[in-house]
Amino acid sequence: MLEKMERMACLFDFYGPLLTDRQQRIMELHYENDWSLGEIAAEFGVSRQAIYDILKRAEKALEHYEERLGLVGKFSTERQQLTEVYRLLRDMDVLDDNKKKRALTLLQEVLGMADNRGEG
Amino acid sequence: MLEKMERMACLFDFYGPLLTDRQQRIMELHYENDWSLGEIAAEFGVSRQAIYDILKRAEKALEHYEERLGLVGKFSTERQQLTEVYRLLRDMDVLDDNKKKRALTLLQEVLGMADNRGEG
Repeated sequence: MLEKMERMACLFDFYGPLLTDRQQRIMELHYENDWSLGEIAAEFGVSRQAIYDILKRAEKALEHYEERLGLVGKFSTERQQLTEVYRLLRDMDVLDDNKKKRALTLLQEVLGMADNRGEG
Repeated sequence: MLEKMERMACLFDFYGPLLTDRQQRIMELHYENDWSLGEIAAEFGVSRQAIYDILKRAEKALEHYEERLGLVGKFSTERQQLTEVYRLLRDMDVLDDNKKKRALTLLQEVLGMADNRGEG
């Protein structure tokens, strides 16, 4: 269940802008703000079933985009590889510390890591 | 002109699978196999204008996807950063050569570089 939530959040992150405004708003409330279907239904003044249907359709559209483009899968593999590069470099004994610092900063930017946070 | 060709080839690389089969085939012939509009028209038994219109519509669709998702722009920035990391690491004097080799191999994979080719 958590896995499905995470996957949908990730697909939404990539392909969300291709959904309709209404779909985007409801996906956001459900997957980012953690609202229940009932809460969203109350907010929009429609039935819980209507929200359920909109969510299902949006999820199907996102899965369709990933099936065609596969960018989330590719991105996830790359992140793993780059995280390993980051750790190797961080733990490397080097003679020129400036080069190492610059490379680590660049990798942090690519990986979206907050500066100087360390990273386990 | 070359820049436009390159940009379209890049957009097609990312978002091509979202086009219709016919659009994909014609984009491929034009942008990957370098066929002229006239040659494609002859192949499909339609007018040069018809091919021109299909290409324009496909290009517009690709630009629309990039406008919404911006993945090509993001990808291109990341490639530049990772290429710099690769060069810094390649030119780095290190005490543990195995870690360096492993990190370089991973970066080559992410950057889609052929093994041991050097890279300027």
